[in-house]
Amino acid sequence: MRMVEYEEASPEVKAVYDDIMATRRVDWINNFWKVLANDPASLRRTWESLKQVMAPGALDPLVKEMLYLAVSASNGCGYCIASHSAAARKAGMSDAMFGELMAVVGMANETNRLAQGWQVEIDERFRPRR
Amino acid sequence: MRMVEYEEASPEVKAVYDDIMATRRVDWINNFWKVLANDPASLRRTWESLKQVMAPGALDPLVKEMLYLAVSASNGCGYCIASHSAAARKAGMSDAMFGELMAVVGMANETNRLAQGWQVEIDERFRPRR
Amino acid sequence: MRMVEYEEASPEVKAVYDDIMATRRVDWINNFWKVLANDPASLRRTWESLKQVMAPGALDPLVKEMLYLAVSASNGCGYCIASHSAAARKAGMSDAMFGELMAVVGMANETNRLAQGWQVEIDERFRPRR
Amino acid sequence: MRMVEYEEASPEVKAVYDDIMATRRVDWINNFWKVLANDPASLRRTWESLKQVMAPGALDPLVKEMLYLAVSASNGCGYCIASHSAAARKAGMSDAMFGELMAVVGMANETNRLAQGWQVEIDERFRPRR
Amino acid sequence: MRMVEYEEASPEVKAVYDDIMATRRVDWINNFWKVLANDPASLRRTWESLKQVMAPGALDPLVKEMLYLAVSASNGCGYCIASHSAAARKAGMSDAMFGELMAVVGMANETNRLAQGWQVEIDERFRPRR
Amino acid sequence: MRMVEYEEASPEVKAVYDDIMATRRVDWINNFWKVLANDPASLRRTWESLKQVMAPGALDPLVKEMLYLAVSASNGCGYCIASHSAAARKAGMSDAMFGELMAVVGMANETNRLAQGWQVEIDERFRPRR
Repeated sequence: MRMVEYEEASPEVKAVYDDIMATRRVDWINNFWKVLANDPASLRRTWESLKQVMAPGALDPLVKEMLYLAVSASNGCGYCIASHSAAARKAGMSDAMFGELMAVVGMANETNRLAQGWQVEIDERFRPRR
Repeated sequence: MRMVEYEEASPEVKAVYDDIMATRRVDWINNFWKVLANDPASLRRTWESLKQVMAPGALDPLVKEMLYLAVSASNGCGYCIASHSAAARKAGMSDAMFGELMAVVGMANETNRLAQGWQVEIDERFRPRR
Repeated sequence: MRMVEYEEASPEVKAVYDDIMATRRVDWINNFWKVLANDPASLRRTWESLKQVMAPGALDPLVKEMLYLAVSASNGCGYCIASHSAAARKAGMSDAMFGELMAVVGMANETNRLAQGWQVEIDERFRPRR
Repeated sequence: MRMVEYEEASPEVKAVYDDIMATRRVDWINNFWKVLANDPASLRRTWESLKQVMAPGALDPLVKEMLYLAVSASNGCGYCIASHSAAARKAGMSDAMFGELMAVVGMANETNRLAQGWQVEIDERFRPRR
Repeated sequence: MRMVEYEEASPEVKAVYDDIMATRRVDWINNFWKVLANDPASLRRTWESLKQVMAPGALDPLVKEMLYLAVSASNGCGYCIASHSAAARKAGMSDAMFGELMAVVGMANETNRLAQGWQVEIDERFRPRR
Repeated sequence: MRMVEYEEASPEVKAVYDDIMATRRVDWINNFWKVLANDPASLRRTWESLKQVMAPGALDPLVKEMLYLAVSASNGCGYCIASHSAAARKAGMSDAMFGELMAVVGMANETNRLAQGWQVEIDERFRPRR
């Protein structure tokens, strides 16, 4: 799958690229979108969803970027770790914050398996009440 | 593996239980620790690590709990989702914050696989420089 | 672990290589098998299983290759994504089909985590009856 | 998180519920949406994406449901396995097709780890050309 | 999917059940095989593979069972954790061995994510030479 | 994140490096620790935990290294597979043992998904009694 550069993109793809650059206040498009542009419907839907999900709300953008990075690190997605590390840095994540974020990711992965392997039953008080 | 209740615990286990309750300002121990107490060395080491990792630092405790919950949800650990949802609520996570947290977790899991399945190469500008 | 080339392979390994090439109607062996050939028992067992599983049956070979690719993309296995993308293409997967396949993989990974993180209980009507 | 029943739902949530029932030609809503409705923005966005992704296209709905089920089984999401098994059955998946689907899922998970653990390098001919 | 009991099983399925019981020196069949028996080809192939893989070889059966349990705990498969805990106990795993096994599983899951999240490059001396 | 070399390390980091080299009887530090040293608290805590977990106990060091490698292969962590393959070799793992280890990892990953996808219920006799 080749990367779809701006110059050669269809109007539909160009419109998404323009929105990405305007929303992020940058003048370039990263490889993820250039590759996804091979399927314009996926490009548009994924970008629209991402834009909504990452917009400021009850959580601020830095926290959202750090959550994104934590999940990506936990999943071992090389591309996503690299791109969301950059995004989180840009949103204000310091070296110290990254170190603590990774410590939480590591710890959660450790205790997730301990809880599962030791077959721990959920405490009554933690059960969702419906 | 039975759960080790406070009354029947060895002095070593009791000391960890006491520290858990003092640190968290609660008067009960959740099942995870009661089961892990079957291996006192694991109990102590895991608790000491968790206490250090979750202490306030460059990230505040609420953000740390949300990161923990995000990883646990991504890993599908039922016990951890239930217990860390409770912990994050206690630390101040509102319904709206939980909704946005889960939206980020869902989105990250989606784009992690898109990046991997589409075999996207890391942009030069995202590569770590060492 | 070096790769075991055809010329230097033992008769047991050669027999598997010959069957791979005959079954797939190709005149080359891909790296996966050349590396696995360091353990001839694993080579033989894995190939025999794969041959049975991927043979036409209630599902046609293209659907099977797409299922294989979907799982590999979901697991983030770089080698498997590359090799099964090629295999699925050869079996008839178009660009449009690949785009839709990846969209399903992404969506499933997103909603899998939403269902787990939101702790959704299984509907009575979805429960297996035994 | 309680489940949001149709009668008590806000107009925004009701509109999504109505579209789900109309699109699927059913008169009930499954638990996933009732729980997600606690965050109306997530409900709407997730449903809109799912509707687009699962619509007939280059792949027919049965293949899409089987891909969804394969990923869900691979991820071990209990809710998703139960609900998408039902959906795939409804779309025409027979017992024999399910058996073969699961065989592919199992095999892919096995060889994904063999390829990674044996550190197999990607064959030149499988590399994406960009 | 109902469970296929011995009495109602086809001769093909009965033959596999007989071999399972003879190999394991037990007089009962666990649920995994009874469910898988709905697809006799999967039942036979999976059992044949498992029998070969778990037979004594360069690794003894206890080590193999512990490796199986470690992977199952890491993957969070409830059924597999329960059944392989039982199998490992039967093969000689003590409480202390189980505690240490789970500690390694937890630690590996932690450092796996640290290595990925911190984007650590493989040391030259660890690279496979081919 | 640059790698922290011994010469430029702080006394706190140097102390950990010295302990790693003394414990492992080597005169070099692998990249994992050099990168983690950017967060000295994580470096110290992770090393202390690892040292305790991997020390000889009810399980010998070779078995522990093989368990570590099995989990790392199952998780697809490239760095960890490379470094723990080397460590397991050094601890005595032969080619034959590695082949069998990987066969178990593959098999466990296969049956983990079969058990989950087929929705197998845990046998009464496998349930933990508490």
